[in-house]
Amino acid sequence: MFGGAFGATDGKAREHTISVLVENRPGVLSRVAGMFSRRGFNIDSIVVGAAEEPGFSRMTIVLVGDERELEQVQKQLHKLIEVIKVSELDPAEMVERELALIKVAADRTNRAEIVQIVDIFRASIVDVSPHTVIVEVTGDVKKVEAMVDLLRPFGIKEIVRTGRVGVLRGPKSSGVHGDRRRGLQAVGG
Amino acid sequence: MFGGAFGATDGKAREHTISVLVENRPGVLSRVAGMFSRRGFNIDSIVVGAAEEPGFSRMTIVLVGDERELEQVQKQLHKLIEVIKVSELDPAEMVERELALIKVAADRTNRAEIVQIVDIFRASIVDVSPHTVIVEVTGDVKKVEAMVDLLRPFGIKEIVRTGRVGVLRGPKSSGVHGDRRRGLQAVGG
Repeated sequence: MFGGAFGATDGKAREHTISVLVENRPGVLSRVAGMFSRRGFNIDSIVVGAAEEPGFSRMTIVLVGDERELEQVQKQLHKLIEVIKVSELDPAEMVERELALIKVAADRTNRAEIVQIVDIFRASIVDVSPHTVIVEVTGDVKKVEAMVDLLRPFGIKEIVRTGRVGVLRGPKSSGVHGDRRRGLQAVGG
Repeated sequence: MFGGAFGATDGKAREHTISVLVENRPGVLSRVAGMFSRRGFNIDSIVVGAAEEPGFSRMTIVLVGDERELEQVQKQLHKLIEVIKVSELDPAEMVERELALIKVAADRTNRAEIVQIVDIFRASIVDVSPHTVIVEVTGDVKKVEAMVDLLRPFGIKEIVRTGRVGVLRGPKSSGVHGDRRRGLQAVGG
């Protein structure tokens, strides 16, 4: 979506979620996005947010590719000086979440039905006007998409989605402390 | 944070939230991030996610600047061919949300106390291991930061935050339909 077109996909292409810890220097997002674009890697989503320590951010990048392409991406990321750590998040060991705000056409005749759908999904209504409601939903991609599909018949005015963030279950961490820069030697050194 | 350093801040600098609807062409994020970096605009957070129609994405960009700088940003964004629409979201009329996953050190002695904090914030615990829990919280920036501050004494292992997304309350929309490209003439034409 934000990278270039794909080259060879001779290997088994699948979705990979990569967590990248970076120093907050000016232009770091531009350099990361530029690398993906130049190299023709295809990013499905990218999320950038503050990390656990001031001066650091964490990017969660979802991309589709085979093992060779994943290795290339990790190598290229490690070449950027702002990159502290790159971890692939195993889907089986990961908590994955996305947040979406969905503005839906709604009036007196169908608002109750929308409220019912929202309750089933443990989502919530965060704004009501005479002709619209705004629904907030968090969950994995499947849940968010199921919610959007159920609301679509009412008339969706606007969707804002954050893209996916992921954290490894249990004590393992892709954090600032611990094995800082070890990934560099392991993968890109 | 991701742009360059600021130049003059002679006007009243404040936080602005901009919603940018773009076509999903290869390299669009790279071009947007590159523009901010080259021009020295200072992005506080950027979120990219799927919009309400296939082939479109919506970026929510938070930046600090005065009115003149904001106008420059809007003009430069409109110059990019992938940009369909740029809207500033008025903080008084906006629902703003962020999602955070927070991995906290926790064991039998303090888990109950963490659960209590999580309940007060209407957050939820999405993973438990013998020595950690993962907390999911959504809300505005103040809420997420208050939650982080309360959990910090237990020992935070990792934080992944999505950055902020925003939607205008009520029927007004920054959507694909309606006044497509009208913003271009109004702001950047």
